[in-house]
Amino acid sequence: MLDFEAALAQAEAETGLIPKAAAGPIAACCRADFLDLAALAESAVKAGNLAIPMVKQLTALVAKGDADAARFVHWGATSQDAIDTGMVLQLRAFLHALDTDLGALCAALAALVEAHRHTPMVGRTWLQQALPITFGLKAAGWLDAVERNRERLRAARPRLLTLQFGGAAGTLAALGDGGMAVSLALAARLDLALPAIPWHGHRDRIAEAGAALGLLIGTLGKIASDVALCMQTEVGELMEPAGEGRGGSSTMPHKRNPVASAAVLAAAARAPGLVATLLSAMPQQHERGLGNWHAEWIALPELCRLAGGAVHWTVDTVKGLEVHGDRMARNLEATGGLILAEAVQMALAGKLGRLAAHDLVEAACRRATAENRHLRDVLREAAEVTAVLTAAEIDCLLDPRGYLGLTQDFIDRVLRTP
Amino acid sequence: MLDFEAALAQAEAETGLIPKAAAGPIAACCRADFLDLAALAESAVKAGNLAIPMVKQLTALVAKGDADAARFVHWGATSQDAIDTGMVLQLRAFLHALDTDLGALCAALAALVEAHRHTPMVGRTWLQQALPITFGLKAAGWLDAVERNRERLRAARPRLLTLQFGGAAGTLAALGDGGMAVSLALAARLDLALPAIPWHGHRDRIAEAGAALGLLIGTLGKIASDVALCMQTEVGELMEPAGEGRGGSSTMPHKRNPVASAAVLAAAARAPGLVATLLSAMPQQHERGLGNWHAEWIALPELCRLAGGAVHWTVDTVKGLEVHGDRMARNLEATGGLILAEAVQMALAGKLGRLAAHDLVEAACRRATAENRHLRDVLREAAEVTAVLTAAEIDCLLDPRGYLGLTQDFIDRVLRTP
Amino acid sequence: MLDFEAALAQAEAETGLIPKAAAGPIAACCRADFLDLAALAESAVKAGNLAIPMVKQLTALVAKGDADAARFVHWGATSQDAIDTGMVLQLRAFLHALDTDLGALCAALAALVEAHRHTPMVGRTWLQQALPITFGLKAAGWLDAVERNRERLRAARPRLLTLQFGGAAGTLAALGDGGMAVSLALAARLDLALPAIPWHGHRDRIAEAGAALGLLIGTLGKIASDVALCMQTEVGELMEPAGEGRGGSSTMPHKRNPVASAAVLAAAARAPGLVATLLSAMPQQHERGLGNWHAEWIALPELCRLAGGAVHWTVDTVKGLEVHGDRMARNLEATGGLILAEAVQMALAGKLGRLAAHDLVEAACRRATAENRHLRDVLREAAEVTAVLTAAEIDCLLDPRGYLGLTQDFIDRVLRTP
Amino acid sequence: MLDFEAALAQAEAETGLIPKAAAGPIAACCRADFLDLAALAESAVKAGNLAIPMVKQLTALVAKGDADAARFVHWGATSQDAIDTGMVLQLRAFLHALDTDLGALCAALAALVEAHRHTPMVGRTWLQQALPITFGLKAAGWLDAVERNRERLRAARPRLLTLQFGGAAGTLAALGDGGMAVSLALAARLDLALPAIPWHGHRDRIAEAGAALGLLIGTLGKIASDVALCMQTEVGELMEPAGEGRGGSSTMPHKRNPVASAAVLAAAARAPGLVATLLSAMPQQHERGLGNWHAEWIALPELCRLAGGAVHWTVDTVKGLEVHGDRMARNLEATGGLILAEAVQMALAGKLGRLAAHDLVEAACRRATAENRHLRDVLREAAEVTAVLTAAEIDCLLDPRGYLGLTQDFIDRVLRTP
Repeated sequence: MLDFEAALAQAEAETGLIPKAAAGPIAACCRADFLDLAALAESAVKAGNLAIPMVKQLTALVAKGDADAARFVHWGATSQDAIDTGMVLQLRAFLHALDTDLGALCAALAALVEAHRHTPMVGRTWLQQALPITFGLKAAGWLDAVERNRERLRAARPRLLTLQFGGAAGTLAALGDGGMAVSLALAARLDLALPAIPWHGHRDRIAEAGAALGLLIGTLGKIASDVALCMQTEVGELMEPAGEGRGGSSTMPHKRNPVASAAVLAAAARAPGLVATLLSAMPQQHERGLGNWHAEWIALPELCRLAGGAVHWTVDTVKGLEVHGDRMARNLEATGGLILAEAVQMALAGKLGRLAAHDLVEAACRRATAENRHLRDVLREAAEVTAVLTAAEIDCLLDPRGYLGLTQDFIDRVLRTP
Repeated sequence: MLDFEAALAQAEAETGLIPKAAAGPIAACCRADFLDLAALAESAVKAGNLAIPMVKQLTALVAKGDADAARFVHWGATSQDAIDTGMVLQLRAFLHALDTDLGALCAALAALVEAHRHTPMVGRTWLQQALPITFGLKAAGWLDAVERNRERLRAARPRLLTLQFGGAAGTLAALGDGGMAVSLALAARLDLALPAIPWHGHRDRIAEAGAALGLLIGTLGKIASDVALCMQTEVGELMEPAGEGRGGSSTMPHKRNPVASAAVLAAAARAPGLVATLLSAMPQQHERGLGNWHAEWIALPELCRLAGGAVHWTVDTVKGLEVHGDRMARNLEATGGLILAEAVQMALAGKLGRLAAHDLVEAACRRATAENRHLRDVLREAAEVTAVLTAAEIDCLLDPRGYLGLTQDFIDRVLRTP
Repeated sequence: MLDFEAALAQAEAETGLIPKAAAGPIAACCRADFLDLAALAESAVKAGNLAIPMVKQLTALVAKGDADAARFVHWGATSQDAIDTGMVLQLRAFLHALDTDLGALCAALAALVEAHRHTPMVGRTWLQQALPITFGLKAAGWLDAVERNRERLRAARPRLLTLQFGGAAGTLAALGDGGMAVSLALAARLDLALPAIPWHGHRDRIAEAGAALGLLIGTLGKIASDVALCMQTEVGELMEPAGEGRGGSSTMPHKRNPVASAAVLAAAARAPGLVATLLSAMPQQHERGLGNWHAEWIALPELCRLAGGAVHWTVDTVKGLEVHGDRMARNLEATGGLILAEAVQMALAGKLGRLAAHDLVEAACRRATAENRHLRDVLREAAEVTAVLTAAEIDCLLDPRGYLGLTQDFIDRVLRTP
Repeated sequence: MLDFEAALAQAEAETGLIPKAAAGPIAACCRADFLDLAALAESAVKAGNLAIPMVKQLTALVAKGDADAARFVHWGATSQDAIDTGMVLQLRAFLHALDTDLGALCAALAALVEAHRHTPMVGRTWLQQALPITFGLKAAGWLDAVERNRERLRAARPRLLTLQFGGAAGTLAALGDGGMAVSLALAARLDLALPAIPWHGHRDRIAEAGAALGLLIGTLGKIASDVALCMQTEVGELMEPAGEGRGGSSTMPHKRNPVASAAVLAAAARAPGLVATLLSAMPQQHERGLGNWHAEWIALPELCRLAGGAVHWTVDTVKGLEVHGDRMARNLEATGGLILAEAVQMALAGKLGRLAAHDLVEAACRRATAENRHLRDVLREAAEVTAVLTAAEIDCLLDPRGYLGLTQDFIDRVLRTP
């Protein structure tokens, strides 16, 4: 808000709306450490927002050194101009830092994909083992989604990073003929886009920022969910990085709790409600609303905090992730070949038709399950199967590495490698 | 889903993965009116989704005419391929229709802005009268926000309109070497983008679609809120179009309820919860989730219905809106000049400083309120005021048409007229 | 709504407000199958609610047989009286059926608890193995929570099952002196509580109903989450009941997807947004709101549908649940004794102090993990341990059945058995 | 949490589980001002919760004075025991204070109802003038809803105020045979109910607390919405209390913004998302969840803060509310008699039938509107009307005080006065 007030005084001085001499003393006082924050907080309760007492304090500060200049503090602006523009400026700084962190996350994920593009593991659907994949493919899915979120946040910036400046009812009437010149100069000084029209009562920009952060947090929550599920004692394929004092349990000395995943999942549990708050707050009354506007003041910053924290934890996890290829391999064996039933089914389907093959393999799977035997052995006894497949062909069909389909192509496409 | 199955068979035949002769009979059966929908619904309960029984019915249908072709129905695909791609195809059709309706809405709003660019009315903040604006300016704010939503929906399309095709675990392993060729051919046939990698477990596209619709609905809710508030008996500035059987009350024959605004506001009350559901559902487990995926099946279509309905009602309202300029003018007089206190304050501020002018005018306003007199008369008696302003200047400052600031500039910027 | 209209006519006739002869013909026409539902739906769009065209159709129906009686249809009531009371009546029927189903669920859960009160399994926290429990204890936690929800729904009934009857602005002015007598008679006929005052604009009853259902759905979601996690291929401890056409996969013939759990988890993903909608809709304007009231019409019935379905699926799951005690036992061995580290730690703590014991056992666990050995063997080599524990004592401490604490007491308390 | 730790040590000493001498030193150290809060916050990040580093600090503190006692800090408990019980204890203190404030609110509302039980004002539906009520009736509706919320919060207490004590996996295995005795003693010391079974993974209690607070906030939001709407410049019937530095505008010196209503409406905009978060977090995994549990830590305290603040602001508003009976009277005249059309219609309906009367009065209203005349004058010219009503009867029907129905009865019922 103080950056807004300083730039406003300078823009108004530059365009001749206020005396040239007023800008310097005002701008010089626009420093957060000059304000009495406790007094600000207390006055804000009665005033209904932070800008009113901030302007009062600022005016008093300027007046100490230059009573003439003090008359031109906040000239022609309304509280919401300062509050909204202040929020936009903070959002810009945050989005810049977030983009940097997302760059680090993408780099870490790309390295993980490359490192494990050939590490076979179980692909799971409905929390059941389905078919083999590689861990690189799973991580490529993570990377692809993070990149899409990064692109989405970048694409939204021009809509979000926009000056708010309209005065009390959005007409800038208090500035007389000088309103447009000041607006242009102010936007230029703050390096923000000048919108077609002030947007005090139209909050789609704010809600869009929240939604884009909510989407990012959702994607990070999906990654955290995958990690936490793979860290289950019975799965044991991944492990968050260890560290002194990290993830220990006060009563179970052997545990290594997924604390990073928990933090990200907590963010993912909280973000949807915050985004919903911003959307619910959109129908603001007339030229400037009451109550719904105020609800944004917590919800958007909180989403920024959650997104920033979730990215931080995810970078930390990805960089230090322990990948247990041996457990991945062992888990691929857990079903006694059932996980490769589709490979057999597809091979049979070409010869017997899809439904017939499906029924045949389903029966073999049931028998293998009921008798607790390996699918290989059941298939070798099935006359319909051995009529069209040799034992060696059956063995080959039951090797996970032979049934990875487009795994490498998809990884290449995500990594944009030729 | 049937469009997906037809295109899949054709793409697989075209690339040699299944017999050329199989595609025709399969595609010919892919018509919704051939299916037993009641049986479909019943089987879906046990199967866990609609695609499984749909494929069974389709296979049986094809088999009646061509048992060989029937073996190649749904070849290599998984249920979610059909369900997701089917949803994307429906979303595309919906977004196309919505864009057309949004075009009509923008045109109607632009006409409204032009018609009332000079119609003075009260600008209101915190539900209090603040300063004069024109109704054209208010409508320009509506138009600006609707255009931004339209642009947002268009910008999201390339991310949203994307093929889903990965087979059981996202590797297309069942297609052997032919997976990429089929993918390319299938995407081309359906005119959808081919994503870098299947996205069964990454739902940011779905949630982004929902969020973009939620933002649009929020903006329409803001317009509806403005209309309903302006329709209040005590305000009387706007009136939704009347019509036979529309908005009547069963017990109060004189009322004309804002039924269109109510419908839009109901949509705005429901959308945030639906968007939150989609965001909450994002952390889907591993390669394909359970439960959270299923939650999308209602939430996204419902958001489409709400958005479509809300746009319909808003077009209807804007096209037939009754604008009562006389009531707008009368309401401008309601405060006995107080609404133009800022004009006086700004004029005085140039001479006395911002805070001194503020305090002086605040005192005059309090006196006018306490004594129930027009601000003009109080100002004419204030020595500090008459020392710097003539009576004629005071009168001029209290004329709403003289204090509209950049109203016409902002309107021009929104209308993009020179 | 028709039940309301019939009872209203009868109450008004009974108290002399309308002719005795009018009640019979009106009540006789109050049958849903007499209405033209398609016409109703179409008229409702313009009218803004369902009650207005319903009253018109009903009046026309009555008029066919008795023009005099038709004059007294809906006498003195407002649309919202019929709509709200109709919703309350449906809610009562629903809550009654739900309570019956919850009774069946509690019985099935109690049987499950009894059957497995001594079946040892792993207790898990943060998705990591923690300490032994029994499956009966886990199921007792489910039962306890379901019972609490049942009690909560019962306790809410007196607040929820309340007549709505206030006429256009909540004064029943249209009934003259007869309002209270009619109110009493109407409440008696419908067997609903007569509230202190009509509640058209105060929606806490509706939102409370939704919240209570949301809580129940959340509890059922927790149970479904437990079941789905225990059904993971790598865990294999529980299995939803199998059945023809149930939970099969179109491409992986061996899978048995947890379709019931998915349905319940989908409900749990959707309910929070619906409850939030009801809460958001509470600040309804003045005597009767617009838009926010309308938002309830979908949200509350949808919560009823979700709750009813989720209870149904949970009963089905609990009754047919396959419990694999052998897998439970095997999973207890998965950590090589680490899961009982706390037992050792507590035994040592009494002798060495809590923190020292913690550090000692933590070190042993790390060594067992690093060297891939059983904790028993590591402990037997640790001098600080063997100084205070014999080998037999160590063995005993590592037996899960010996470290179940109050498991049986807690089960007894939940089952209320002595 | 420290209260929990102190009581735990005392209960364990009392029941002989730990040495009698250990309890005193432990309890003496359980003071928040002894802890290094900054170090706590930092360690919590890695540990994953606050209890682990708190117990470490506490143990170190105790050890300074009594190394023997230090061995028995947190004996047999798990982090969540301390965190959940700590939250319950804070919730109890909060609910007690809230109940006191709600008592003050009910008293202030009751006084308002009494003071204005006969002050006529407009009743409004769909934001349109509907029929006359009194301001006392409107305030009685507020009071009735607040009382219901107070009752609801009280009724929920026995379910909410419950000890959490189960140890690592909810069996209290670490306490050997002494678990139940300690549990009973601990619950008694903390004056909390002992639940049938620990509830680490079942969060319906927490979510119920949040929902009950959300309902209260929703009701307060409804009151704030009514006040803000009645404060509109064009309505002017109510005014929040004024005060130095309260609700002023930085640019419009005449405005008195409804800052209390804005604060309450902001709470009402934020609460639904927070309640949804608690409901979404309910399906916690197995014996203790990850991520979803952590999400509660912010959401429930925030709901408490919002509820406490909203009650505070509402008490402030109700106690100092300015009620402008003159504006209420003037607004009753705004429609030129239309607002009493129902009175006329009901009088005519008894003679001509409901629909005929409706149509007749509707036509008269339309004519009055079109010709901008008072309804009285139009009715006096209508032959169908004058055939059954005298001019004096028409005048009488158009007096608001004569058409208030059960207003006084409803007020009496809410106030429980005879």
